[in-house]
Amino acid sequence: MMKIGYLGPKATFTDLAVTTMFPQAEKISYDTIPECIDAVSHGKVELGVVPLENALEGSVNLTIDYLIHEQSLPIVGEIIAPIQQHLMVHPYHVNGWKDVQEIYSHSHAIAQCHKFLHTHFKKAKYVYMTSTSAAAKFVSEHPHLHIAAIANRLAAEEYGLTIVRENIHDYDYNHTRFIIVRRQNEELTIDSPLYAGDKTTLMITLPKDQAGALHQVLSAFAWRKLNLTKIESRPAKTGLGNYFFIIDIDQKMDDVLIPGAIAELEALDCTVQVLGSYPYYIV
Amino acid sequence: MMKIGYLGPKATFTDLAVTTMFPQAEKISYDTIPECIDAVSHGKVELGVVPLENALEGSVNLTIDYLIHEQSLPIVGEIIAPIQQHLMVHPYHVNGWKDVQEIYSHSHAIAQCHKFLHTHFKKAKYVYMTSTSAAAKFVSEHPHLHIAAIANRLAAEEYGLTIVRENIHDYDYNHTRFIIVRRQNEELTIDSPLYAGDKTTLMITLPKDQAGALHQVLSAFAWRKLNLTKIESRPAKTGLGNYFFIIDIDQKMDDVLIPGAIAELEALDCTVQVLGSYPYYIV
Repeated sequence: MMKIGYLGPKATFTDLAVTTMFPQAEKISYDTIPECIDAVSHGKVELGVVPLENALEGSVNLTIDYLIHEQSLPIVGEIIAPIQQHLMVHPYHVNGWKDVQEIYSHSHAIAQCHKFLHTHFKKAKYVYMTSTSAAAKFVSEHPHLHIAAIANRLAAEEYGLTIVRENIHDYDYNHTRFIIVRRQNEELTIDSPLYAGDKTTLMITLPKDQAGALHQVLSAFAWRKLNLTKIESRPAKTGLGNYFFIIDIDQKMDDVLIPGAIAELEALDCTVQVLGSYPYYIV
Repeated sequence: MMKIGYLGPKATFTDLAVTTMFPQAEKISYDTIPECIDAVSHGKVELGVVPLENALEGSVNLTIDYLIHEQSLPIVGEIIAPIQQHLMVHPYHVNGWKDVQEIYSHSHAIAQCHKFLHTHFKKAKYVYMTSTSAAAKFVSEHPHLHIAAIANRLAAEEYGLTIVRENIHDYDYNHTRFIIVRRQNEELTIDSPLYAGDKTTLMITLPKDQAGALHQVLSAFAWRKLNLTKIESRPAKTGLGNYFFIIDIDQKMDDVLIPGAIAELEALDCTVQVLGSYPYYIV
């Protein structure tokens, strides 16, 4: 059975993504993103799954920064998962759920359900926990308290809570992205119905901060009709005002176009690193 | 005295930024980014300060998303603050600090001090709190426990802890950006020695997902020699695969160049929104 490390604790959104994508795997939870990436690097787990974008638990920046500065592991896959927040209570309180006095969750989850809470629980007190799953756990352990948690489906199952209102998040199209990293750059051989396409992620460092340099860089992709689905400048840790760019191209690494673009960028004194060329899955 | 709302609780990094930038102001803490922005919008505070990038407490994405989708307030200033993490203990434990058994902090702060902790506290247990300041508070309230917190200077002062090791974060050039929002788009009239320059932030929506569209957009800036210091694509909440871009130009709104670029983009069927043109301060 394949061992997969993920950013824990149990029943977070990362766990939900891993469970949906790899129902057969043995899951091992890690407390921080660096610990999870280190575990892959040291061969304790075969794959690691950590949030990359828009995450509730775990800093997005940490993932890319750690991969770039500390442990250079290839990205071998990506999981895109909708953020679906549910209101849940202890089974004792299913009938009286509208009158709960306190709502427990991660502060970002509470912010994501701002409109729903503002409409239905204007008088409730919000209590912040370190994760949505810690909130669900707390509610399950305090059946005598008249409280609710906001968390995902998996947390309700894990801690025996009853979902009393589904999908209370404000935006339907809010997604989290998780990347799958591996020690060696071997292709994931998963024949999954969730497969949705391929992409290639590059890290590009410009020679110096100059007007139009980024435009010149993008020309290398544009005239080859390589479509970019993400571009993000990130401060380098080498000094204030130094940046690098993370770019996603919506296709697999090929023999001609992407290598040609990279060669052109290097001729312009850019540094280019391929962080991965991999399939993505929508769960 | 000017009232300033900020993302709380007390003694977080947002509080530290506000305290450094506006030492004379009356500070009012809000539990979430939406609440803080709403308070500005409803006139309860004159300015609001919320994290925009690289934050420990508070999701970066939430700030831009809330400003774009819910409360369209202008950005009138920016504060750039280094992330400096310190190890602190109750004064009782100053001598024995190297033997603390548990270290309390926000999970991101613990991740940011990964190398230091890995070297000096390999056997300690890490306990996650909802914020660095909550960790400092807990340590101050449990003098009998042999524990430490990782938090900022302000938290040590606020909760009477002693810093036993300064600057334990892994990277010196790690910064957080905070934006200052206001109900009306009036200039901040602060004559501050921390003033470091001006920038203009635009939100640009491309007409459709097409190869090279972004390149075309950047041309409008490049040939005018407008220098971009940040570019970030963000998923729109209108459907998977829809994006908008946030762009920072390193100058104030002028009468010719930026309006010219905007007119050109609109002629290309882009939607352009000026989120603010404002001074930035490095604290």
